[in-house]
Amino acid sequence: MATTTPDEPDQLIDVPAGLRGVAVTDTRLGDVRGAQGFFHYRQYSATDLARTRSLEDVWQLLLDGELPTTAAERDRFTAEIGPLRTVPDEVSDAVAGIARHGGAGLGGLRTALSLLAQADDMPPLWDSPPQRRRRDLLRLAAATPTLIAALWRHSHGLEPIAPDPTLGHIADYLHMLGGTPTDTRAARAVEQYAMLTVDHGFNASTFTARVVASTGADAGSAVVAALGALSGPLHGGAPSRALQLLEAIGEPSRAAAWVRAAIERNERIMGFGHAVYRGDDPRSLLLRHIAQDLGGDLADFAISVEAIITATLAELRPDRHLYANVEYYAGVVMATCGIDRQLFTPTFAVGRTIGWTANIAEQAADRRIIRPAARYTGPPPPQPVPELNLDPEAR
Amino acid sequence: MATTTPDEPDQLIDVPAGLRGVAVTDTRLGDVRGAQGFFHYRQYSATDLARTRSLEDVWQLLLDGELPTTAAERDRFTAEIGPLRTVPDEVSDAVAGIARHGGAGLGGLRTALSLLAQADDMPPLWDSPPQRRRRDLLRLAAATPTLIAALWRHSHGLEPIAPDPTLGHIADYLHMLGGTPTDTRAARAVEQYAMLTVDHGFNASTFTARVVASTGADAGSAVVAALGALSGPLHGGAPSRALQLLEAIGEPSRAAAWVRAAIERNERIMGFGHAVYRGDDPRSLLLRHIAQDLGGDLADFAISVEAIITATLAELRPDRHLYANVEYYAGVVMATCGIDRQLFTPTFAVGRTIGWTANIAEQAADRRIIRPAARYTGPPPPQPVPELNLDPEAR
Repeated sequence: MATTTPDEPDQLIDVPAGLRGVAVTDTRLGDVRGAQGFFHYRQYSATDLARTRSLEDVWQLLLDGELPTTAAERDRFTAEIGPLRTVPDEVSDAVAGIARHGGAGLGGLRTALSLLAQADDMPPLWDSPPQRRRRDLLRLAAATPTLIAALWRHSHGLEPIAPDPTLGHIADYLHMLGGTPTDTRAARAVEQYAMLTVDHGFNASTFTARVVASTGADAGSAVVAALGALSGPLHGGAPSRALQLLEAIGEPSRAAAWVRAAIERNERIMGFGHAVYRGDDPRSLLLRHIAQDLGGDLADFAISVEAIITATLAELRPDRHLYANVEYYAGVVMATCGIDRQLFTPTFAVGRTIGWTANIAEQAADRRIIRPAARYTGPPPPQPVPELNLDPEAR
Repeated sequence: MATTTPDEPDQLIDVPAGLRGVAVTDTRLGDVRGAQGFFHYRQYSATDLARTRSLEDVWQLLLDGELPTTAAERDRFTAEIGPLRTVPDEVSDAVAGIARHGGAGLGGLRTALSLLAQADDMPPLWDSPPQRRRRDLLRLAAATPTLIAALWRHSHGLEPIAPDPTLGHIADYLHMLGGTPTDTRAARAVEQYAMLTVDHGFNASTFTARVVASTGADAGSAVVAALGALSGPLHGGAPSRALQLLEAIGEPSRAAAWVRAAIERNERIMGFGHAVYRGDDPRSLLLRHIAQDLGGDLADFAISVEAIITATLAELRPDRHLYANVEYYAGVVMATCGIDRQLFTPTFAVGRTIGWTANIAEQAADRRIIRPAARYTGPPPPQPVPELNLDPEAR
């Protein structure tokens, strides 16, 4: 278990760059089985859950450890989160000002969630009684759609729409964004997208949330930190790039030639290939079905282009096993459901916040700081500090 | 170097809990040599730098790699950071609202820095030209004292005081806090405290900053995340606890009996003991000198109590080698310089932000994501998803 902290560089433990494959902690929340082509939340296949259950069920599963099995159990949980979507007036008021900088991007959500954590006076995780900790974690994930929608509407000169606790979490998000009567097919499609992206292994934002939580910080600090990691180009932000690919191709008949040319220029095909899945990405398989059910020009186009790109990649890069990943259909599904491209990454955050908060709860129970080391590779210390020549003529 | 991501739990790499001693990265920024009782920024002893140089010199050393050796070099750097202390009007205006929640604590600073990063429209680190990246990093550390002071004054019903770019970084901070003519002895004492706490090994907040930076996120996201880690009880926040110890003791004649009773109750003596230093903490040695030079009742009291506690601990816990750590004198020095206890951790952040930004710059140059793994220890997946009984009478 614990070891003493080494003093000398040669006592450091060497591991692969970027901590690749290094087990930081135990988890009961889930995992990715890349070779077997599936990922799971607790002991259930995530795609099975997305097909048969609600986002709130998955939320409850991750946070509390059990799926509801009766309507009463489900209702108890949804009754808990509904009211937490309503943020205090002073936070709502401040959101208009926050929206002035960068609109509805992740930066605004980061500031708004930070303010909400302040307004709620969230105590450090370790000083929180279990019920208070649970409430803060539910609050952060529950209020995320409210804040995104308010930022979005303010940045378009529109008044925010109050949450409706009688609606499902995603249905309410779409309601707050658009103010139109809720399209239940769209709400279910976006809900399934969110269910598929609640968690996925020990990704960089989840890890960030756990590092911050391991210091005993408040839940808000941990979520705000994770959101910062999500803003990196290596992590969030790709669904819109896959749509840009479809736009660049323009029509199915051009797809094969376009991909061929891109590969010859050694360009990466956005939305294809994954570090862990060697075959199909289970998320993209389900999202393709969802896109197919939704229908529409974009979905039809994306499905025919996917087939052409997959065949072309198989011909030109047979060794690479490149298939559509979650990003390829995420943008297609969101766009078909009327979500603006600027909202793709914030919408990803709606689901992922649920995963972060479950990870924060698990980490907080551990009460052990994550505090690694670095290897100093500069000139040997201590060297004498050079004097400062105060003669104003010296250069 | 890079390895493939393992799919199966048994391919994971096991390391000590909390990544203790695990070398995540190389660094040229510095290190702690606990057994030898010193720590260094680049190749120079940090205490040597604190004795002979300015905070701005250390800042330049960490960020740019070199100490200024002429007045012209120093002036060039201070001319760069002075104007960056002034924040945009809309951020200043918003700070009054932010201060309403939790006053001048770290939560308010987290929100205000997040808003500043938005207002400055900080691009992802990897999309930033070097000059823009450098400017954003300088900005975040330069504006931290401005934001803390404005939050503090707003939360006390006072108008903020504008920064004065002709003053040193810490002198300006004290000026913005108090509005009284600057006490140069106090400014130098707090500056030396800040210099001693700019960086210290690969602590949890610095690691957080580097994880977020490794995703290519913007500099603001990385600093905001690090600030969240600092809010944890395991990391920031201890200087005020050491002052509480002094208050609990009340007078030197009670110190020996007080410590004896606390040890018998198996309580930890706040401000004593360190995970890495087995002998004196080099920071507390210099801070004791600084406290001695400042003088005053609190400093005199703290010095006599320290001697008694050290002797009592040596008698009762001879195996533990417990000496005053950086926290013990940090509070004494700050309080003697007129800094309110609520501002101790934010003041710690004034110096530490400089360390974080240097670490972010180093990490951004690496362009490789820090993305470890976790070991799934729950029931084997995939289990069939239980059905939901929608009969409202079921429980």
